[in-house]
Amino acid sequence: IRLNRDKDLKNLLDDFHYADIAEILDELDLEEAMYVIKLLDSETTADILMELDEDNREKVLRNLSTKEIAEEIAELDTDDAADIIAELPEERRQEVISQIEDEEHKAEITELLKYDEDSAGGLMAKELVKVYDTWTVAGCLRRLRGQAKEVTRVHSVYVVDKQEKLVGRLSLKDLIVAKNEQKIADIYISSVDYVNVNDDAEDVARVMQKYDLEAIPVVDDNMKLLGRITIDDIVDVMKEEAERDYQLAAGISQDVEADDSIFELTKARLPWLLIGMFGGLGAATIITGFQTAMKDFTILLSFVPLIQATAGNVGVQSSAIVVQGLANDTIKGEIFKRLFKEFLLGLVNGIGIALIVLPISHFLFGTEYLVSLTICVALITVIVIAALIGTFIPIFLDKRGIDPAVATGPFITTSNDIFGILIYFLIAKLILGF
Amino acid sequence: IRLNRDKDLKNLLDDFHYADIAEILDELDLEEAMYVIKLLDSETTADILMELDEDNREKVLRNLSTKEIAEEIAELDTDDAADIIAELPEERRQEVISQIEDEEHKAEITELLKYDEDSAGGLMAKELVKVYDTWTVAGCLRRLRGQAKEVTRVHSVYVVDKQEKLVGRLSLKDLIVAKNEQKIADIYISSVDYVNVNDDAEDVARVMQKYDLEAIPVVDDNMKLLGRITIDDIVDVMKEEAERDYQLAAGISQDVEADDSIFELTKARLPWLLIGMFGGLGAATIITGFQTAMKDFTILLSFVPLIQATAGNVGVQSSAIVVQGLANDTIKGEIFKRLFKEFLLGLVNGIGIALIVLPISHFLFGTEYLVSLTICVALITVIVIAALIGTFIPIFLDKRGIDPAVATGPFITTSNDIFGILIYFLIAKLILGF
Repeated sequence: IRLNRDKDLKNLLDDFHYADIAEILDELDLEEAMYVIKLLDSETTADILMELDEDNREKVLRNLSTKEIAEEIAELDTDDAADIIAELPEERRQEVISQIEDEEHKAEITELLKYDEDSAGGLMAKELVKVYDTWTVAGCLRRLRGQAKEVTRVHSVYVVDKQEKLVGRLSLKDLIVAKNEQKIADIYISSVDYVNVNDDAEDVARVMQKYDLEAIPVVDDNMKLLGRITIDDIVDVMKEEAERDYQLAAGISQDVEADDSIFELTKARLPWLLIGMFGGLGAATIITGFQTAMKDFTILLSFVPLIQATAGNVGVQSSAIVVQGLANDTIKGEIFKRLFKEFLLGLVNGIGIALIVLPISHFLFGTEYLVSLTICVALITVIVIAALIGTFIPIFLDKRGIDPAVATGPFITTSNDIFGILIYFLIAKLILGF
Repeated sequence: IRLNRDKDLKNLLDDFHYADIAEILDELDLEEAMYVIKLLDSETTADILMELDEDNREKVLRNLSTKEIAEEIAELDTDDAADIIAELPEERRQEVISQIEDEEHKAEITELLKYDEDSAGGLMAKELVKVYDTWTVAGCLRRLRGQAKEVTRVHSVYVVDKQEKLVGRLSLKDLIVAKNEQKIADIYISSVDYVNVNDDAEDVARVMQKYDLEAIPVVDDNMKLLGRITIDDIVDVMKEEAERDYQLAAGISQDVEADDSIFELTKARLPWLLIGMFGGLGAATIITGFQTAMKDFTILLSFVPLIQATAGNVGVQSSAIVVQGLANDTIKGEIFKRLFKEFLLGLVNGIGIALIVLPISHFLFGTEYLVSLTICVALITVIVIAALIGTFIPIFLDKRGIDPAVATGPFITTSNDIFGILIYFLIAKLILGF
C-alpha cells in the first residue's frame, strides 16, 4: 500500500473474495482502508462493507459522502441495504435514501426500515422469485429468467394467488422435471412453512433449524407475501445469540470483543463486578456478625472459601443446564418435578463431596468431630439449596418474560455466595451451639 | 393412542411434519413410540428417526430388526444413513450394511463410515449434482432431470473435468438463463470454494459462514470431487459447538440435557465440583496457616469472600472474551500487548472497585486505616492478576493445541480463588506486618 502502485494492487485484490478483503481491511488503519475502498468498484466494496467489523464499518461510512453510500447501497440486496442505512445517524439516513436512484429499490428499503431489527421483518429481503398459480410451466420458466437475474441466489420459488397471498412453493427441481404445458397450480407444493413479519428473529431461527429450511417466506397477517429470509442471516442470528448467552454467563453485559477499547470493556464488565462486590460485602457483614460469637471455632472461617466456591459452582451448573433447556424448548412439565430432581442430584453430589471432605478436614486440619460434621452437613445443604436456586431462578425469569440467560454467571454466583455462607454459619450455630 | 384407532391416527399424523412427529415421540414412552413408528411408512419414519433425541433414537433402533433399520436407511441421504449406522453397536453395523439392497447406496455409506465424524468427510453426503465441462446446456438440462430426482435439494451444480476433478460450479439460475447451445465450459464459474475431506468440521463451519455458502463441495488431495456439505448440517455443528462451550464455561463436561438421568448429570458435574473442592481445601490451608499469625486482624477474614468472588468473576470475564476471540479467529498480534491491555483494564476496574470498598469498609465495618488500605491494595492486585491469568491461560492452551474453552468456568475460578486469597494475606502481612 505504501508504494501506491494502484493498478497492481487492484489486480491483486480482484482475485480475492470480498470476505477476505474485508478481513484485511479490518487490520488496516482507516486511511489505508479508505484508500483501498476508493480503488475498488462499488459492487465489490458494497459486499466488503457488509463483511467489515461493525465499528470499522461505522468509521468507513462516516468517511463516505451520502452519494457514495447511496451508490454502495444500490448494489446491495434490500435486507443488507436496510441494515447499513439503519446504522447511519438519523440525519444522514434520509439524505442517503433520497439519493438512491432506483425508485423500487428505494421504496423496498424504506419499507424494511419500518420493522424492528430483531423481528422477521428486520431480517427479510424483498428479493424473491414468485409465480402466480395460474401460469403454465413454460410461461413460468420464461418469466423466471427475467426475475432470477435480479436475485442473487434462488432458493425457492413462491407461489401466490391473484391477491398476492402465499399459497405454496415450487422447487426449481420440480420445475425442471415438469412438462412445459402443465399449470403451476397442478405442480406446486401447498404445504409451505412461513413466518409472520412480526415474529421474533430467534423464533424464526428455531423454525428454520427445526425444519432444516434454507429460506422461509415472510407474510403479513393476511398471508400476503412480503419477503423471504435466508439461512445465512439466520446463521448470524444464531451466532449472536450463542455469543450473547456465553458472555452473560461470564458476566459481560454487552457485545464486546477482545479488541474493543478499555472503556468499552470496562463498561461491559464493571457492572457485574460491582454485583459481585456487593455480594462480597454482604458476606463480610455475615461473617463479622458471627465472628465474635464463635471465638472457639475460628477454624470454621478457613472453610468459608470451600463453601462459597462450591455454592457458586453448583449454582452456575444448574442454571446453565436450565437456561440451555429453555433456549432449546426442551424444558417442559411440572416445575416441582424438576426441582425435586435437582434436590436429589444435589444430595448425591453433596454427599459425594462431603465424604471426601470429612476425612481430609478431620485428619489434615485436625478439626474436632463436631466441626467436621458441621462442615459436611453445611456442604450438603449448600449444594442442595444452590442447585434449587440455580434451577428455580431461570425458570421464574422465563415465566416472567425476562431472558433467563442473565441469571447465570455473577448473578447466581453472588446470591449463592451469600446464601451459602449464611447457611454455613447457621448450621454451625445449630450443631456447635455457640 | 390408547384407543388403537390406527387409521385415524395415521391420517392425523400424515398431516404433520416429521420434525413435529419426532417431538411428540420424544415425549411418549418407548412402547407407544414404537407403536407409532410401525404404523407409519418407512419414508416418514426415516426422517423422524433423524430428528429424534439421540437417547431415544438409540432405544428405538435397539427395538428394530437389522432388516427394518436397513429399510429406514434406504430412505435416507448417505450422510444421515452413515450417521445412524455409526450410532449402532459394532456387531449390528455389518449386519445392517449387508442388508441394504441398493449396491451403490451401500458402497457410498461404507465409504462415508471411514471418515472421522468431526471431519468434512464425516459431514458430507454423496448425493450431489455434477456435470462435465464438455456438456452443452441442453444436454446438461436433460441429464439434470435424471440426477435431480435423486437429490433432495439441489444447491449448486458442480462442474468436473474428465478426471472427475472439481473445476467450478454452475448455479441453477445461470443454467436457466443460459442458451441451449452453449457449452458448460463457457458458462461455469471457475472460482469455487471447497474443503478437503480431512478438514475439521468446525473449520468447514467457519469457511461456510464467512463466505455465506449454502453448500460446499468436498474434494480429496487430488481435487477429486467426493461429496458435498450443506448448511443445515453446519448449523447443527455450530449449535453443538456453542452448547459445548457454554457448558464448559459453566463447569459441565459432557453433552447433557436437563432431562438426562441423575447419574448422567452427576458424571458431567461432579468432576468440576471436585476441582472446586480441592481449590477450597487449598484456600483453607492458606487461611489456617495465616490465622494464628494475624490474631489482631481477624476482621481481615470477613473480606475473604469479597476477594475470592472478585478474583473469580474477573478471571471468568477475561477468559471468556479470549476464548470467544480465539473461536472467531480475531485474536491476533503480540501476546504481550494483549496482556498489557488486560493489565490496564484490571487496574481501571480494580481502582474503581477499591474506591467504593474503601469508605464502606472504613465506616460501616469500622476497620482501621491500614486494614482498609490492605483490603483495597489486595483488591486491585487480585483483579489485575486474575485478569492476566484469565487472558494468559486460554492463549497458552490454544498454542498447545488444547481447546481453550476448558479454561473458563470452574478451572479459572478455582485457580484464581487460591491465588487471590494467597495474595490477599501476603499483602496483609506486608502492610500490617504481622
